[in-house]
Amino acid sequence: MNILVGQSGGPTAVINSTLAGIIAGGIKSPKIERIFGAVGGIEGVFQNDIIELTGFSSAKLALLKQTPSSFLGSCRRKLGDEEEAYIKIFEIFKKYDIGCFFYIGGNDSMDTADKLNRFARKIGSEIRICGVPKTIDNDLAVTDHSPGYGSAAKFVANAVRSLALDTAVYNMKSVVVLEIMGRNAGWLTAAAALGNDSDVLATDIICLPERAFDPDKFLEKVSNIESGTAPIIAVSEGIKDRFGNYLGESPSLRQKSDGFSHAALGGVGRRIENLISENLGIKTRTIELSTLQRCYAQCASERDICEAFDAGFESVRLAENGESGFMPCFKRIFDNPYKIEIIPRPLSEIANYEKTVPDNMITADGMGVTQDFITYGSPLICGEPNHIYENGLLKFIKR
Amino acid sequence: MNILVGQSGGPTAVINSTLAGIIAGGIKSPKIERIFGAVGGIEGVFQNDIIELTGFSSAKLALLKQTPSSFLGSCRRKLGDEEEAYIKIFEIFKKYDIGCFFYIGGNDSMDTADKLNRFARKIGSEIRICGVPKTIDNDLAVTDHSPGYGSAAKFVANAVRSLALDTAVYNMKSVVVLEIMGRNAGWLTAAAALGNDSDVLATDIICLPERAFDPDKFLEKVSNIESGTAPIIAVSEGIKDRFGNYLGESPSLRQKSDGFSHAALGGVGRRIENLISENLGIKTRTIELSTLQRCYAQCASERDICEAFDAGFESVRLAENGESGFMPCFKRIFDNPYKIEIIPRPLSEIANYEKTVPDNMITADGMGVTQDFITYGSPLICGEPNHIYENGLLKFIKR
Repeated sequence: MNILVGQSGGPTAVINSTLAGIIAGGIKSPKIERIFGAVGGIEGVFQNDIIELTGFSSAKLALLKQTPSSFLGSCRRKLGDEEEAYIKIFEIFKKYDIGCFFYIGGNDSMDTADKLNRFARKIGSEIRICGVPKTIDNDLAVTDHSPGYGSAAKFVANAVRSLALDTAVYNMKSVVVLEIMGRNAGWLTAAAALGNDSDVLATDIICLPERAFDPDKFLEKVSNIESGTAPIIAVSEGIKDRFGNYLGESPSLRQKSDGFSHAALGGVGRRIENLISENLGIKTRTIELSTLQRCYAQCASERDICEAFDAGFESVRLAENGESGFMPCFKRIFDNPYKIEIIPRPLSEIANYEKTVPDNMITADGMGVTQDFITYGSPLICGEPNHIYENGLLKFIKR
Repeated sequence: MNILVGQSGGPTAVINSTLAGIIAGGIKSPKIERIFGAVGGIEGVFQNDIIELTGFSSAKLALLKQTPSSFLGSCRRKLGDEEEAYIKIFEIFKKYDIGCFFYIGGNDSMDTADKLNRFARKIGSEIRICGVPKTIDNDLAVTDHSPGYGSAAKFVANAVRSLALDTAVYNMKSVVVLEIMGRNAGWLTAAAALGNDSDVLATDIICLPERAFDPDKFLEKVSNIESGTAPIIAVSEGIKDRFGNYLGESPSLRQKSDGFSHAALGGVGRRIENLISENLGIKTRTIELSTLQRCYAQCASERDICEAFDAGFESVRLAENGESGFMPCFKRIFDNPYKIEIIPRPLSEIANYEKTVPDNMITADGMGVTQDFITYGSPLICGEPNHIYENGLLKFIKR
């Protein structure tokens, strides 16, 4: 039996660690002969753009584990209902004698994997289909958390911490608005709170898409920031006004903040910067964390890297033993000392759901997170990887 | 004899390592009794806002070495010619029985230190004044390079490398414009080229303020980027058009790129993004590296941290032996194996000069750097610090 793996959706710091886990699992298994990779996700299957990964050395696997972005390339193609597409895909599966297909990705990819699994069952194919979780958004259902989140959260927590020190050097009241990824789920923005400890108050205002943004209450909270301190205000790119409009498109806030058309402005962060500076006269700057938050592997969470690898490795073990139509999920056993188990759960329970930050993790005023979130998130950012550097550069591997 | 130290200008990842070097030097010296710090630079001297640092433990020094930003706070105050200011400062010096004053900072701070030294000589004071270099811009004259540059350059080099992989995952022609700090000197922008190695071509277009930006030649170069690759275009925030206007304020480019007023646009990066997308129709995004490039100490250069410490430590040794009106400069002995010496040079040779990237380090087309720059810059980003983390967070110390 041969296996095939593809990567999909946006890159993360550890999606290649999951790929490394699948390759390592395939190499270890006596049942598996050859390991193939689809270049550019499911699109690569359509295009018959398949490369062999069977001979990967342990040195190459070590580099793969620390290389961000998607080694195999990615796509955003969603499978629809047209049967020809599935027939074409299964022809390629047959051509390469594929017994198990692994699709590493987020919500859309789990939907693709689920559909492929249903089609396999429908046509009586014995091929096993496995979706393997990956998302910095942490919005996949059923699993306690997703590989990719811990490293992105760690980057955010440490960034907000450094920025808070940087901003505080001049003895004046000033504010930094930090725009963080996450259109519908605020998990990554919430991670800004993980940057606080007994030495540094990095942030105390966090605006999540799970709560409607109230400009008046927000301005009141900002105006209460003590002079001489300079905390970071963490805002999700996906925050919405009370009518459900994204802030970048909200006419009410636009009138409140400025007279420009929103097309000429930057994103949400810039919008909130204007709101603060024009209403409170406080010196305000916006920083967008940008794609660095998902790809700056230099500061990844070692726990995240290991769990990403384990999710891949365990998927192979489960699939070769006959499991299909599943995603390996993390089940948390303890918060402290932290312990998880990996268990397979049906893709149908996961695909097309979006897990947002629950009420018990958001403060009553809607502009912060509770201890429940800290307890949940803290273990995920732990551990410093022992990375391979050369001349000051984190070493990467390219296909 | 007591000593006093102040920090000035913008924060860096290693300015506190220099402070740690001065404290360690003061603790070691039998001639020095007490060590004081001025809170908020020279402003703290005026305000008599002085704290004692004498009792710093080695554990606290270790944390100080890895804490970014300015432990003592900073200011942007420049000393003018009014004698009262100097009299006031020297009264404070006398009050605390200060024998040596150390001012850590960039060009403006060296000017301040130079003026204080001249005043000391004029009034016959025996106090010794030392300026200690610090700048991510690397624009201080005489010294081979300045503490702070290596760590910022390392962040840039590794960021551009990660972003290049991130951008390349979808099989389409796309471009990322990366806006990097540096108004008049392109050293930090040039560091993007240090992110290239045999595995990853992270960037091949670099626009420095040392060369006038030519939109036509630039667009021609961008249009020659091969499809399927997605290199990063590194641009300095300080690039100017052929009339010497900053690009954000250039009317000719504004007409070429869009009809908006530049106030509504972002910075230079956004301007160049528009230029590319409107003239070449290539998908383009802008990423501003923001203040993270100077404060993300998690990925600092160990060599930079050590050299910053040594510059501080050596300053104390030189000052207690009678040297005054100097800055400790790095003199490069070898590129490979890298070796420097620290030698004192007069502040008057350094203050108010701005060292830009020399011609031999810039390619003939003005949109890249030569091997001379790579040879110069590569050693400065080397070495991974063995930092102290707690629960995934780089530990900091605050005053």
